[in-house]
Amino acid sequence: MTALDATHDQTLRSWVESANEPTTDFPIQNLPFGVFARDGRATVGVAIGDQILDVSACLDAGLLPASVRATAEACRDTLLNRLMALGREPARALRAAISVLLSHGSPAAGSASSILVPMKDVAMEMPAHVGDYSDFYASLYHATNVGSMFRPDNPLLPNYKWIPIGYHGRASSIVVSGTEVHRPIGQTRDGNDGAPVVGQTKRLDYELELGVFVGRGNARGSTIAIGEAEDHMFGVCLLNDWSARDIQAWEYQPLGPFLAKSFVTTISPWVVTFDALAPFRAPAFQRAPEEPAPLPYLESLENANAGGLNVTLEVLLTSEKMRAAGETPVQVSKGSFTDMYWTLAQLVTHHASNGCDLRAGDLLGSGTVSGSTKESRGCLLERTWRGSEPIELPGGETRAFLADGDEVTLRGYCERDGYRRIGLGQCVGRVVAR
Amino acid sequence: MTALDATHDQTLRSWVESANEPTTDFPIQNLPFGVFARDGRATVGVAIGDQILDVSACLDAGLLPASVRATAEACRDTLLNRLMALGREPARALRAAISVLLSHGSPAAGSASSILVPMKDVAMEMPAHVGDYSDFYASLYHATNVGSMFRPDNPLLPNYKWIPIGYHGRASSIVVSGTEVHRPIGQTRDGNDGAPVVGQTKRLDYELELGVFVGRGNARGSTIAIGEAEDHMFGVCLLNDWSARDIQAWEYQPLGPFLAKSFVTTISPWVVTFDALAPFRAPAFQRAPEEPAPLPYLESLENANAGGLNVTLEVLLTSEKMRAAGETPVQVSKGSFTDMYWTLAQLVTHHASNGCDLRAGDLLGSGTVSGSTKESRGCLLERTWRGSEPIELPGGETRAFLADGDEVTLRGYCERDGYRRIGLGQCVGRVVAR
Repeated sequence: MTALDATHDQTLRSWVESANEPTTDFPIQNLPFGVFARDGRATVGVAIGDQILDVSACLDAGLLPASVRATAEACRDTLLNRLMALGREPARALRAAISVLLSHGSPAAGSASSILVPMKDVAMEMPAHVGDYSDFYASLYHATNVGSMFRPDNPLLPNYKWIPIGYHGRASSIVVSGTEVHRPIGQTRDGNDGAPVVGQTKRLDYELELGVFVGRGNARGSTIAIGEAEDHMFGVCLLNDWSARDIQAWEYQPLGPFLAKSFVTTISPWVVTFDALAPFRAPAFQRAPEEPAPLPYLESLENANAGGLNVTLEVLLTSEKMRAAGETPVQVSKGSFTDMYWTLAQLVTHHASNGCDLRAGDLLGSGTVSGSTKESRGCLLERTWRGSEPIELPGGETRAFLADGDEVTLRGYCERDGYRRIGLGQCVGRVVAR
Repeated sequence: MTALDATHDQTLRSWVESANEPTTDFPIQNLPFGVFARDGRATVGVAIGDQILDVSACLDAGLLPASVRATAEACRDTLLNRLMALGREPARALRAAISVLLSHGSPAAGSASSILVPMKDVAMEMPAHVGDYSDFYASLYHATNVGSMFRPDNPLLPNYKWIPIGYHGRASSIVVSGTEVHRPIGQTRDGNDGAPVVGQTKRLDYELELGVFVGRGNARGSTIAIGEAEDHMFGVCLLNDWSARDIQAWEYQPLGPFLAKSFVTTISPWVVTFDALAPFRAPAFQRAPEEPAPLPYLESLENANAGGLNVTLEVLLTSEKMRAAGETPVQVSKGSFTDMYWTLAQLVTHHASNGCDLRAGDLLGSGTVSGSTKESRGCLLERTWRGSEPIELPGGETRAFLADGDEVTLRGYCERDGYRRIGLGQCVGRVVAR
């Protein structure tokens, strides 16, 4: 795990005034990396308040100390993969240098116009090339809820508490926040008999997840010890694993979800590093005495004590009608990543335990973040209990599943007494008819 | 489908003498594309007998007609992706021009030393960057056999005859023929109770498959009509979907196979184009009258009449002891791709039916190729019926599953009266202990 240092000091202020506002997701204590495009050219930036620091421009202006220049050169690219591949230490040093650069009193303030770009003037792009995307199922509450709908007598399968269950996802259909979500077409079948029909999904759902980007990879045939897993993790983003529940129910046996997921997966554009998250580490899920302990390869004292992440996660929904009426978004889920049964380090270690090579920029989804309460269920399937308890929206509408025109926004943030609040930004997608 | 043309004429002979030998996989009627490395530099080549035609060298020597030069320029690369992305027509024209170039009587024979490279002097590399790898389950015999072991009362799930069942695989662990296969470690559990153990798999298996490389891709949100699917298919290779059956049995529910597959997947280096395969097209699987017809989006007259591929596929095995004793390899499976329930075009069309974007170089595995007879079962799980009927090897050894030192070789070839036999080459992997 990362030790706390000067970059986490809550009294630190930036000469970028918008970064000092209490509501910003991007105070100087955060400094997430992303890729932005201006005039059609993409490059790496760091979020600060409502501005973006152009890392290449900092290099050009000679604003970075010699010790981090080689690392910053990896940001002269249209993707974060090169920076991610360098591993945790170089990225930590670069973030620390950028913290100094953006701190109140830094002489860099004079160069602001050349190195800062207003967020409102640019488009955010995919932060990395995702070579492989894997999605997990790390919430016991989610697995139990979903299992009890499909297998009432046997909701939780016997492997769940032993294996961080995951599956391979589709990398090509991962898109950045703001991309439209076309309602997919697929085979579905009502009931247990008769021919399936082909048509637009009637049960379109969101899934509230965290994504973790792999930093330094491992060679094929090698494994990643639990004590080293954090060194292979670059940072996190929000992830909406859009799901067509009726397609999924019909296709998923025996090889798992396929087209019910691969039409689109949306991620937020800013990758919040584990260095920024250091103050918000939490114990791993507290297993009951009668539950099995994790097998030795998935267990360490450090993981038990601080493998969790205290991130609060929310899902907001607006319908077309609500937007026309000027209604504020409705919060449909609110949960905490501390409710996850498996830590991100355990997902990474398990993934490589067979010798599978993880590469810089590979993305692991946590699985739907659901807690023990109804409000903390991270998808509509659970939230409306398969549609039987629809959600009421302002203006009299109800939702069992998503309607065309619905816009889903994921948000995430970390709060702790004595520390500055940091946020993950937003992950937005609007459903459009095919 | 591809019309037959002069490149398929069985009387055509090459000035490369080894291409005229009846046993070669690579007569002038084949001309598969691949990537070879010489002195550490990789480039695109075409197999001819026991030689490789260096496409860049042909361009340098001015041996290609103006009409295909732009296409050939896409071969000045270390991967086939650029050529694949151009679509079927340009690759067809390039193959036809290379057929002329290599034909008996061509003036190019004089330049042979500069454009031909002996296969024995080079290493073959991965033919393409695989952005996403998906694996299917397209043999009814395989699905029924495996299902009857795990679900005796309910071997074939109700969706099988409606949906070409598939799942997302791992792209990073795809390797080229010849790469060692490290026996993976994983969680397994004997019986239905107690704690799982972590150790090397005891049930390592091969799976005999064809892989199909995507050529021209489709945009995200668009679909691929069954009549257009062949335009999006570049060519085929052999694919060994190595599987750890004990890891798979314990991990696969409810989200499908994961670490039981992602340690390594081996492919053959030469990509045989659908133009070369034109004489060997076959009717799709003949469904019984009581079986459902494919849904309209998966059906066309052309697919029914010629969507199949008449490729004979074999698996050969040698143990360390057999090699030491100079024994010839044992054939452990021999099947035909005409036994597949779903055609490759149906796999492609189904995959994109939800708007999922397929990209040039993406790889689709067919699933294990098994037929109705015992000999045609394409993996040891079926062949030894879960280990209960071990195979006998020369020298007194038996195999329920693979042992360390075992070498598995997949071979494939097409034969038809009136046409020259063409082959897919070999896909080889040797199991080594961790």
